[in-house]
Amino acid sequence: MHSIDSTSLLLDIAAIDRKSISAQVRRFAEFSMYDWLVVARAGSDQRLSQIIRGFVEAESGRPAASVIGSRSKVPARLAALANGTISHALDYDDTHFAHVGHPSVAIMPAALAVAEEIGASACDARDAFLLGAEASCRIGMVLGRAHYERGFHQTATAGAIGATIAAGRLYGLPADQLRSALSLISTRAAGLKSQFGTMGKPYNAGIAAANGVEVAALARRGFSSCDDGIGGPQGFIETHSDNPDRLTPWLNAPPKSFIFEDIKYKLHACCHGTHAMIEALREIQGKFDVGPTGVVGLEVRTNPRWLKVCDIRQPRTGLEAKFSYRFLAAMVLSGIDTASESVFDDSICNKPHLLRLAQHVRITGDESLSDTTCTIILDDGSHRRMATHDLAQRQSEVALEKGLRAKAKGLLGASTAEALWTKIAALDGLSARDLAALLNG
Amino acid sequence: MHSIDSTSLLLDIAAIDRKSISAQVRRFAEFSMYDWLVVARAGSDQRLSQIIRGFVEAESGRPAASVIGSRSKVPARLAALANGTISHALDYDDTHFAHVGHPSVAIMPAALAVAEEIGASACDARDAFLLGAEASCRIGMVLGRAHYERGFHQTATAGAIGATIAAGRLYGLPADQLRSALSLISTRAAGLKSQFGTMGKPYNAGIAAANGVEVAALARRGFSSCDDGIGGPQGFIETHSDNPDRLTPWLNAPPKSFIFEDIKYKLHACCHGTHAMIEALREIQGKFDVGPTGVVGLEVRTNPRWLKVCDIRQPRTGLEAKFSYRFLAAMVLSGIDTASESVFDDSICNKPHLLRLAQHVRITGDESLSDTTCTIILDDGSHRRMATHDLAQRQSEVALEKGLRAKAKGLLGASTAEALWTKIAALDGLSARDLAALLNG
Repeated sequence: MHSIDSTSLLLDIAAIDRKSISAQVRRFAEFSMYDWLVVARAGSDQRLSQIIRGFVEAESGRPAASVIGSRSKVPARLAALANGTISHALDYDDTHFAHVGHPSVAIMPAALAVAEEIGASACDARDAFLLGAEASCRIGMVLGRAHYERGFHQTATAGAIGATIAAGRLYGLPADQLRSALSLISTRAAGLKSQFGTMGKPYNAGIAAANGVEVAALARRGFSSCDDGIGGPQGFIETHSDNPDRLTPWLNAPPKSFIFEDIKYKLHACCHGTHAMIEALREIQGKFDVGPTGVVGLEVRTNPRWLKVCDIRQPRTGLEAKFSYRFLAAMVLSGIDTASESVFDDSICNKPHLLRLAQHVRITGDESLSDTTCTIILDDGSHRRMATHDLAQRQSEVALEKGLRAKAKGLLGASTAEALWTKIAALDGLSARDLAALLNG
Repeated sequence: MHSIDSTSLLLDIAAIDRKSISAQVRRFAEFSMYDWLVVARAGSDQRLSQIIRGFVEAESGRPAASVIGSRSKVPARLAALANGTISHALDYDDTHFAHVGHPSVAIMPAALAVAEEIGASACDARDAFLLGAEASCRIGMVLGRAHYERGFHQTATAGAIGATIAAGRLYGLPADQLRSALSLISTRAAGLKSQFGTMGKPYNAGIAAANGVEVAALARRGFSSCDDGIGGPQGFIETHSDNPDRLTPWLNAPPKSFIFEDIKYKLHACCHGTHAMIEALREIQGKFDVGPTGVVGLEVRTNPRWLKVCDIRQPRTGLEAKFSYRFLAAMVLSGIDTASESVFDDSICNKPHLLRLAQHVRITGDESLSDTTCTIILDDGSHRRMATHDLAQRQSEVALEKGLRAKAKGLLGASTAEALWTKIAALDGLSARDLAALLNG
């Protein structure tokens, strides 16, 4: 007997024809319908029933918040769902290595949608995002590697908790209501790594953002829950991590220290494992003005784990080029902007000068290097030059700004990129609605 | 150092004042805002972005489905959310012991909302509910006791999978789309037992129903996912159960056999642990016409686990009376209708004739009885009569109908109860919209 997947077994049930169901079984289903109707109507006036009814009546069709690529405004929860999903579509957003996830895509959409809904200032939205992200990173650390290894996706799970903090702070929830919101998110935060490589991965970010908005809105209306659904008995941490760290992540708590500062931006539209090489190459290029013609040899030393990920020798598509050290090195040496999504067209794999240059590149695994570090040794015939780059190093504000603006230019073109930058750089004078207008304007 | 709950630590972060956040940290948050905006806009035209945007624009404000206690129609997802929550408010709905949960409250609201939205027939809604419930019970068995013991709530988790089947069948999803919907629900199905005793428990049913509707609607628009998110590597089963049973629950698969037939209805508005006693008492009463005055002794033998749950000796409130074998026995012997929620008023605890009768009742633990079984020995001075009732026994259709109609009468009054029954008993001629009208009419 070969193995049958669980989904196939469920599909078989879903496809059963009415004629093959006995009258008695159908009758039992009708008893359940009757009983359900009766109990449901009898519970109609309970306090919790009044609250949830008020919420769905008010949410439905309320044009509260903007959606990327849409002219319609929709309820805040739906805006958070769409914007969370859309912003993770390219998988080109920021990463926090200690959190083990992408904080912005789960939390920013929640902060922005609620801030727009209630007419907060842009700085209020920023603060709510920041504190939500900080909380999310800390909880991501509590859940730890064990959570990730079991199959959960911190972007979605810890992200939902951060989204709740962001939405709850903007709604101005008193502590008891925010406590309820956090316990409510503990019973609906979810997200699995088995979605990687599918539309389900960006959806994980969207559901985190949307769930955060919903539980904050419910708590605001008086919907209550248990005291500590996150950390209490059979709470989120206990049920979702086999080896949580309940102490270390809370040391050096904010505002004294923000681990959010360790946020890393993807500045190249290719596999994260190649970024340290690209940065090291750019450092040498900047210092010695090395052009493509002068290179007779390039050795790239990287942590061996990456050899299984991004060492495609002869890429045939743009996507494969994103996972090819050799080809990416040739592109960088030739002055091609790897921040731009559009350069990764399939045709790039056939450019003779890149193919020639790639032949000079040699990749070696080096156990002594961390998985965020790369060392390169470049030979131009007369000199050998060495550079090392570690992505884990904090970057200066100046370097970050430069990198982010270059990336934006590659993705959106110079004029849109600079228009957005001008607004973000002068956040003080903006409302959250001005900010939301940047989703499309 | 005494222990601090995790939620308190999160609340501290949420309450941080802007002035105590350094300019540099705020600046980093602004970099993230910029980068998020850039990446989000750049991903706007991805296929998945188009799908989720189409979904939220269409869902927002669409008056598709009815809500218990409301005159407004709302989007199907929101109706499912509200009706799932409201119908579990009293915790008086059906139970399936093998599934370890309450199937109807998670699945019926999804089936009904979608059936109303698309204009299906009432029988289509019934079939979708039935097959969703059957799938939910089978998956509940796969997840098993280990899932429940770890802290998960099958009503919510397996319930969401059943809700997806029900919604997907009604939407007429082809197998590949239903497969996507099931893999999408695998990444958002959630629900914890730590919500018990709070508004979060009924909310668990509502989110299951709402999530099922949402993923089915997304899959219908072409949103895709992995192949077997339920049973595959790091899928829902692997991540959410420490000891799943992947074989037994699929034996005797439907349509050959429906374990749904083992569904149990709560016919008394009190703790489920007392129901076997109540049924045994009613059997003796029916057979020998025993009245309250003739009783000089009553022994109740029950599984010892219940002694910690529903053996309150001297109840002081209506709620405590629901957990008191002795007092409930006195009520049944006196002819009080325990199906009615309203008889459990606090004043009932002071009725002299009930207090007197309760003194004759003796409760004993008996390891030889299963936890669904109760034996009673009633002494009227001249005869000792014994009866045993096991809730696990399948009831005849006639007995079930009688019990359900009596319960409905107790909860909603005779005229509403009978009006609903008349409709459900003649489902063939009804549309799902007729059925939805019964939520309020």
